[in-house]
Amino acid sequence: MTHQAPKGTRDFYPADMAVRRHIESAWRGASVRHGFDEIDGPTFEHLDLYTVKSGEGIVSELFSFRRAGGENDYALRPEFTPTLARMVAARGAALPVPTKWFAVPNFFRAERPQRGRLREFFQWNVDLLGVDTPGADAEVIATAISALEALGLRAGDVTVKLSHRGAVAGALRGVGVPDEQLGAAFALLDRRDKLPPEEFAKRAAALGAKGDLGGAIAKLARATAPVSSGLDALAADVGVPAAELGALEFLRDALRAAGIEEWCQWDCGIVRGLAYYTGVVFEIHAAGERAVAGGGRYDGLVELFGGPRTPAVGFGMGDVVLGNLLRDKGLLPTDGTELLPKPDVFVVAANDAASAQLPGIVSDLRRAGLHVRHSYKSTRNVGKLLGEAGKSRARFAVILGDGLAAGTVDLKDLASGDQRSVSLTELPTLLLAVSPIRAVGF
Amino acid sequence: MTHQAPKGTRDFYPADMAVRRHIESAWRGASVRHGFDEIDGPTFEHLDLYTVKSGEGIVSELFSFRRAGGENDYALRPEFTPTLARMVAARGAALPVPTKWFAVPNFFRAERPQRGRLREFFQWNVDLLGVDTPGADAEVIATAISALEALGLRAGDVTVKLSHRGAVAGALRGVGVPDEQLGAAFALLDRRDKLPPEEFAKRAAALGAKGDLGGAIAKLARATAPVSSGLDALAADVGVPAAELGALEFLRDALRAAGIEEWCQWDCGIVRGLAYYTGVVFEIHAAGERAVAGGGRYDGLVELFGGPRTPAVGFGMGDVVLGNLLRDKGLLPTDGTELLPKPDVFVVAANDAASAQLPGIVSDLRRAGLHVRHSYKSTRNVGKLLGEAGKSRARFAVILGDGLAAGTVDLKDLASGDQRSVSLTELPTLLLAVSPIRAVGF
Repeated sequence: MTHQAPKGTRDFYPADMAVRRHIESAWRGASVRHGFDEIDGPTFEHLDLYTVKSGEGIVSELFSFRRAGGENDYALRPEFTPTLARMVAARGAALPVPTKWFAVPNFFRAERPQRGRLREFFQWNVDLLGVDTPGADAEVIATAISALEALGLRAGDVTVKLSHRGAVAGALRGVGVPDEQLGAAFALLDRRDKLPPEEFAKRAAALGAKGDLGGAIAKLARATAPVSSGLDALAADVGVPAAELGALEFLRDALRAAGIEEWCQWDCGIVRGLAYYTGVVFEIHAAGERAVAGGGRYDGLVELFGGPRTPAVGFGMGDVVLGNLLRDKGLLPTDGTELLPKPDVFVVAANDAASAQLPGIVSDLRRAGLHVRHSYKSTRNVGKLLGEAGKSRARFAVILGDGLAAGTVDLKDLASGDQRSVSLTELPTLLLAVSPIRAVGF
Repeated sequence: MTHQAPKGTRDFYPADMAVRRHIESAWRGASVRHGFDEIDGPTFEHLDLYTVKSGEGIVSELFSFRRAGGENDYALRPEFTPTLARMVAARGAALPVPTKWFAVPNFFRAERPQRGRLREFFQWNVDLLGVDTPGADAEVIATAISALEALGLRAGDVTVKLSHRGAVAGALRGVGVPDEQLGAAFALLDRRDKLPPEEFAKRAAALGAKGDLGGAIAKLARATAPVSSGLDALAADVGVPAAELGALEFLRDALRAAGIEEWCQWDCGIVRGLAYYTGVVFEIHAAGERAVAGGGRYDGLVELFGGPRTPAVGFGMGDVVLGNLLRDKGLLPTDGTELLPKPDVFVVAANDAASAQLPGIVSDLRRAGLHVRHSYKSTRNVGKLLGEAGKSRARFAVILGDGLAAGTVDLKDLASGDQRSVSLTELPTLLLAVSPIRAVGF
């Protein structure tokens, strides 16, 4: 009998895990450089945490469950923001201002697996709470870009597409959409490409706008411009009123100050599916792929979860689309094992007496902090054993042989082939001095 | 309205997360030093992966579920070994010999939360497959000890309690337990303290042993001895036959060769609840606590999952009991935030002109690889801002002031108080040269 992983989930063998850790390491490095602290929450939450706030879009994709005989309904987390809002609300005023948090949790969506979408995936979440300035918006976007840069991507490879719900709302009000229908108009803009034309027209008509809503939405969907130029023309084109233009100008200035303007593009077709966004919304795209990341400002959400009124901006970046993109751009090794930590030293025994001493010597080197491997084969053929050492990608081989009785071993640099006799007692110090710093922390 | 985390799960605020990462970092460091490669599997598996192999002990504690309208039953993983066996079986002969894997997944058990037991917890798993020697047993035990040492524990703080199912089976056969009842006899030894005496006696009688099984089990439960001495006396006491003694002697020699003898103790009362162990079994205990870790040899399991016959030994170490132990021993800071990465530099603006340049300067320093924080306050009071810098635990403060026009800033060492004027263009190089290596990878 054989068993398989559930559909849409992954087994991470060492080569796969090394790629995942490579990506997570870039996420974590960017987070720490930008001053975010790591958090996490439970893998499953009470179901009502999601049913109450996130809208039906996510609820239909939940893995929800109830234990046999249990009283509570749970759901595997489909996103992080409700957990974050719950955690912020629970601590309330005891949290520092600003609160800068990141997380790298796994999430679950019960949708049909396809390219870029799995049922279990990892997602980097970055949130800056307590600051309502465009500088905070720019800071989280810069954090996302910093990770992408660390992974080898450049401004031409991906684009941060920005919009602003306030500015778009201004344009929609300009064609007579009533305030209470703005949410529905956003949803229509978001789903414009997924609806048949007659269905789109029917829904547009139902919103009761006095002006040409269909035309306004088509115009918004087409409206893109580099952030470095063209804001006034863009705003005039889609009808952003002067009162709303200031927010876009401040955002542009903040992106410029953070030095990330060239990565960014205005795109009034960006809406984001979730209902809770209130200001800037953005997605990071590479041509022809699903969004690598998406986020925005959600100033009202913490309050909805029972906390104090808290301005907030953040994003999520998933590992699946990003991994595909890095592979397509040649930014991941063909064999992920190249990303595994390299051994400092591979120890081989050239005779039976040496073999009896090998476990103790290996143990001493590991206790000194070195990454040590050894052969489990019974052969004493040094040539074969050095071949195994080379395959392990170790930097040095230590050969235990006749010199052991006098307290010496042979140390061989596996790159240069240089070999010399060294004292066994000095070996750990010697290897530590030439080994790279081992950064194996999480 | 307020929401709470599900019973038995945890919210990890930054101080909690820093403790979790501290523990995981010790686990990962020990794994890498000992030559194990990281893997992972899905968070949920098909339910039958657990119902078929692990015995009822675990199945009753599963969080299992089926999607509305779905056809498959799933379960949140309660342990790692079935996933590991499935992954090994899937690759079969394509895997290297030995295969040395570790993982740091989360697990789920639907039992009543209590001290040391939660419904979601993290567990380090270390497995060495393809080698059937006691040297492999000793190597995985040494890996566990290496992580505990890295966390500050010493041989007197915890004890590795070892037994051997083969040797204990020999003793049980010696009082006439038939081979087909050995599993039931192990279970009885395991549950000896949880059963009322009359129930224990009834179950013992049902096993059909000719000799005094109750007496033999009582003797096994009491049988402990240091590994460094007393093996023969212990074996004679509990009745390990000569044919089974060799395995214990080889194991003792391997523990001695690995230099971990002083951490270890024979304890014939150790059984382990899971059915699949075949040789050595061990638990790591501190006085008065649940086991910190447990494992053993499971030579038959991969084959049961459809793979080739594969000798294997491994263990799991959970974060909850270990965290309690470290706290009790004073080996964790009272405030976990002390374990968070320290900022390299905190940037403050002494006037409005400087404030306008702050985002760009902060951005340049981060792009150079530095961990940079700054104030979000509107005050230009340098004393107050330096107070905030100190609270951030940054090593240096950079003060942007009147010198900016001439391209200079003040660099202040926050520990010594030394302050000097430096060129803005040289600042990144200067800070990188004196900053500790940033090890922020996963």
